[in-house]
Amino acid sequence: MSAPACTFCAGAAPAADHRIADLGVTAAYLNDDQYFPGWVVLFLKRHATELFELEAEERRQMMDDVTRVAAALYALFSPRKINYAFLGNQLPHIHWHVTPRLPDDPAPRDAIWAVPHAPVRLAPAERDARIAHVRAKLASG
Amino acid sequence: MSAPACTFCAGAAPAADHRIADLGVTAAYLNDDQYFPGWVVLFLKRHATELFELEAEERRQMMDDVTRVAAALYALFSPRKINYAFLGNQLPHIHWHVTPRLPDDPAPRDAIWAVPHAPVRLAPAERDARIAHVRAKLASG
Repeated sequence: MSAPACTFCAGAAPAADHRIADLGVTAAYLNDDQYFPGWVVLFLKRHATELFELEAEERRQMMDDVTRVAAALYALFSPRKINYAFLGNQLPHIHWHVTPRLPDDPAPRDAIWAVPHAPVRLAPAERDARIAHVRAKLASG
Repeated sequence: MSAPACTFCAGAAPAADHRIADLGVTAAYLNDDQYFPGWVVLFLKRHATELFELEAEERRQMMDDVTRVAAALYALFSPRKINYAFLGNQLPHIHWHVTPRLPDDPAPRDAIWAVPHAPVRLAPAERDARIAHVRAKLASG
């Protein structure tokens, strides 16, 4: 259920202090780069790399987790749109980028990967506050 | 169930000659730009813009459609990875980009939107052949 060569399975990333919540079959983390505020990444807790490797019920649970996070981010950030993506080009282990695109987004028509920027790393207190907000919304939603 | 101002609901895109198949709750089209060979886009047949607007069963069916297309593309193109994304920044109507990233991909670590390129539009015969291959694999899988 885990792969020794996988960065996620080895516990090397994401950093534990970015963890938001343990959901059904995934764990949610605040993305290290907060250039897009509220950018969250959900990792499947067991190792798999394509949607068709999952059992139907596991896939359903995973997408329910993604949807639950999206609804929480929508309530917190009032974005014009939420972006959902599992690419896996650099880290094949299934993980979903859920990114609210806010009304003041610098490039509202573009994918986040098409927007050159310096990563925005929050100070620990601000990061912890953002994690706490998402966690609380998940718990209340 | 449809939105008059929506490009997809109005029938303005994608082009009908790119249609691959009518699946459960989605319709699959060969993406007009085939710079990444096998790039397919699935549109939800009714109008919605976020995952949390769907009923749980409809969301399950949609992701089963996405998964079915991914498995067909995997069998046809033997990619190193498949990318899955619903962004909606330019067209909010729910649609999934399912993109096989082939072994000779020009930028295997990057999101497709981070790879500058001129769109590759196939000649009609080649386009129709690619559509027929995907359609046949969907029917046999």
